[in-house]
Amino acid sequence: MANDTVTLMDNIINLCKRRGFVFQSSEIYGGFNGFFDYGPLGVELKNNIKQAWWKDMVHRRDDIAGLDSTIIHHPTTWKASGHIDNFTDPLVDCKESKMRYRADQLFFAPVVVAGETIGYVSVLEDDTMQTRAQEMANDLKRKLAKQGELAPLVLKDLTEATPDQIPLIPSPATGKPGSLTPPRSFNMMFQTYVGALQDASAIAYLRPETAQGIFINFKNVVDTGRFKIPFGIAQIGKAFRNEINPRNFIFRSREFEQMEIEYFISPEADWQKMHADWIDYCMDWFAAIGIPAEKLSLYQHPKEKLSHYSKGTTDIMFEFPFGVQELQGIAARGNFDLTQHGQVSGKPFDYFDESTKSKYTPHVIEPSVGVDRIFLAVLTTAYAEEEVEGEKRVVLKLHPRLAPYKAAVFPLVKNKPELLARAEQLYKRLKRRWNVFFDASGAIGRRYRRQDEIGTPYGITVDFDTLEKDGTVTLRDRDTLQQVRMTEDDLIKFLEEKIEG
Amino acid sequence: MANDTVTLMDNIINLCKRRGFVFQSSEIYGGFNGFFDYGPLGVELKNNIKQAWWKDMVHRRDDIAGLDSTIIHHPTTWKASGHIDNFTDPLVDCKESKMRYRADQLFFAPVVVAGETIGYVSVLEDDTMQTRAQEMANDLKRKLAKQGELAPLVLKDLTEATPDQIPLIPSPATGKPGSLTPPRSFNMMFQTYVGALQDASAIAYLRPETAQGIFINFKNVVDTGRFKIPFGIAQIGKAFRNEINPRNFIFRSREFEQMEIEYFISPEADWQKMHADWIDYCMDWFAAIGIPAEKLSLYQHPKEKLSHYSKGTTDIMFEFPFGVQELQGIAARGNFDLTQHGQVSGKPFDYFDESTKSKYTPHVIEPSVGVDRIFLAVLTTAYAEEEVEGEKRVVLKLHPRLAPYKAAVFPLVKNKPELLARAEQLYKRLKRRWNVFFDASGAIGRRYRRQDEIGTPYGITVDFDTLEKDGTVTLRDRDTLQQVRMTEDDLIKFLEEKIEG
Repeated sequence: MANDTVTLMDNIINLCKRRGFVFQSSEIYGGFNGFFDYGPLGVELKNNIKQAWWKDMVHRRDDIAGLDSTIIHHPTTWKASGHIDNFTDPLVDCKESKMRYRADQLFFAPVVVAGETIGYVSVLEDDTMQTRAQEMANDLKRKLAKQGELAPLVLKDLTEATPDQIPLIPSPATGKPGSLTPPRSFNMMFQTYVGALQDASAIAYLRPETAQGIFINFKNVVDTGRFKIPFGIAQIGKAFRNEINPRNFIFRSREFEQMEIEYFISPEADWQKMHADWIDYCMDWFAAIGIPAEKLSLYQHPKEKLSHYSKGTTDIMFEFPFGVQELQGIAARGNFDLTQHGQVSGKPFDYFDESTKSKYTPHVIEPSVGVDRIFLAVLTTAYAEEEVEGEKRVVLKLHPRLAPYKAAVFPLVKNKPELLARAEQLYKRLKRRWNVFFDASGAIGRRYRRQDEIGTPYGITVDFDTLEKDGTVTLRDRDTLQQVRMTEDDLIKFLEEKIEG
Repeated sequence: MANDTVTLMDNIINLCKRRGFVFQSSEIYGGFNGFFDYGPLGVELKNNIKQAWWKDMVHRRDDIAGLDSTIIHHPTTWKASGHIDNFTDPLVDCKESKMRYRADQLFFAPVVVAGETIGYVSVLEDDTMQTRAQEMANDLKRKLAKQGELAPLVLKDLTEATPDQIPLIPSPATGKPGSLTPPRSFNMMFQTYVGALQDASAIAYLRPETAQGIFINFKNVVDTGRFKIPFGIAQIGKAFRNEINPRNFIFRSREFEQMEIEYFISPEADWQKMHADWIDYCMDWFAAIGIPAEKLSLYQHPKEKLSHYSKGTTDIMFEFPFGVQELQGIAARGNFDLTQHGQVSGKPFDYFDESTKSKYTPHVIEPSVGVDRIFLAVLTTAYAEEEVEGEKRVVLKLHPRLAPYKAAVFPLVKNKPELLARAEQLYKRLKRRWNVFFDASGAIGRRYRRQDEIGTPYGITVDFDTLEKDGTVTLRDRDTLQQVRMTEDDLIKFLEEKIEG
């Protein structure tokens, strides 16, 4: 990572902690790896992301129904979906230290001196691993007093190690070979027991995705609504994955929130077009909440890497501070899931299409996105340090729909009771409808800065002209810094338009 | 339960299933006891309850901050809070059948004939248990051919059985004595493992309440915001309890959603008054979302049943179809939780009060309510069967703030393109702002009925007068059935006022 991106990530994490957006979970108990709490401002930003999505995906469309299924389903769901068998990471144990590693994050290389393999080195994946491995190789050569040229190190991850190599590769914990086990599959679903018994019959799982709750309710939704294919079911909710190596702040955590749609289509439909339409729709939506197209790119999964049932997957990638990474996946999954649940439950998901008088198991397009990733993408986009009026300011250029506070009301001075009363009156009027802030303390410039830093798009100042002249107030735009006077009624109309998107 | 209340509960459950409010979780796999999914209309009603609460408790007040902490915390949280040791139900095993029972739901009685105890009977708790136990006692007397008078049966639950009685009480599973174990404590928290190891060090729990996430973040919120005591922290989120006997539909389930506030006050404050104020505030809020005071009552927990640290708890009780039960608890918990977390973490929660220049560990008032219970209380209140215009109708008299659809737009007839286009235009205008429905098919009366049943408060009809005369539309009120003509702009203002509370 380049230095300035490290700084950007650090700045975002610091701001999140300093102003109450995101806290490490259970901080007073030393933290809890892979879990994050959203503070007073974070919960507002997160709720606004979810509500904007729900409004644009469910309420403003005619072809999407909402759903809220449980986090814990009947365990057979996960047998049918393939998660019990296949939702795994390759893990390696160190028998000596009892440490565990993801095999694809543990790298090794033979150390070859003058054509002879004199041993192995191993490193955990990060930006410095090549350098560290090189130093280890030099150390090994010195220690064994070997003469001759050290061949360039070729690092591979442990899933590529042969059975003969495993006993020769040192454990990163002990630095000595002989204690690593061959990689084995580790299921990433959190397991629990439901009911009074704690035996195999009582095992259940926390959902690793919200999608399966949609599939198993397909028939319920069709039977109770008047939806006709093509139509979709949308769901927002928590999902859990026992990541061995959660990282990059809220980008990859163990408890996170998803927003998923299963959009059901006829097997005869032009799925390529519908897939492309969904990609466009999602790209437009990101633009509508303030994530610009230039920070986004598309990554089409190569055919040979797709599951057998998948017709195509395109990821919308975002330029995170730590690299270009997946923000949203849009998959054409065929009819794999409905077919599986139909077979395992013995109740096939046959849909009778009145328009074509045919019966079929629908196919799906699945736009799937993480709330926490959007949260981080939004902050990455919005964060700026600028010089304004000769002073440095930190500003979050959040879209008004997403900003925790929609506006802040400032009486110009604190010690004029009529001014204060008038400002409070306006504050109360706005507050009935939106989340707004009131701040009477300190110089007006400092009050602006405090709001800039948390992304409040509008500052509204009540001054002597408000009282003595025309009743207008000053509206200051966070980004352009322009100030405009307007009446309170015009202000409401202005805010309505900006905030409600 | 009286017959008509059984019917009301059945009617509500049927409506929920028929119109897509609530489904049994994992229905295609035979259901999953204690888990419920919210369908397309249910998720809207549930979201509206949560958003109304958040608006009234957080946005419209100056003294409440929001929070969204994780479902899985550091496990020490639950050690400190006392949940690992005390959050238990008494359980009894039948060694023969491997069945488990809650001891306080398994009732027994000695069968005494002519002064001699000839054996025991046992029954699981329900409305018929006295009758069933009596029959069993008669059978036993007959079987043992005992003569003389059978003394009246006195049923007690198994937590009251003496060690001598346990081996003599028949198991409800086998009907024979000798297989029941003495009651033991069963922890109701769902347990899982976090990380790659599955040993004692990796045990974690799904939170059984959202409150502890608030307590452990108290310092974070104080440090990052400008809140001064008294102030509160509010949180909405899922909680999980491994209930042995989940029952009464969504009233007592294993996965549910809570809305909790911890309102922090000075130890010197008049807690009785603040407690009473919160009770009033919550009662007013229930009225504001359409739950009338006459369906509510207060239950003050008797002093001797309170935990040692508790100063007082009052429950707001609701007249559910299955009896008067707790809807919301409002507890004055002293400073127990903050003190515990301070001691266990070694970081005392000292708050410096600038107004009194004193340092203390704050006390709390805790209003705590379940979203699913409010959902059921709202449906219970709203459900009605009426005769209207000579026809029976089922109607949900939901408050407009809570109704899944705020209005339905109807073109009077379907086969006039201009009329259809005009109605669609209005529909689109409304839909940008609210969740509204469009229905062009069937007689207008039938279209009204369909909306009545799902609680849509306003029907808006576009007819020939709209096109040919003054552009006004007809607004029909779901409850009064009154129809009023108004312009589209007046309609928007009217809806705004009704819907946004």
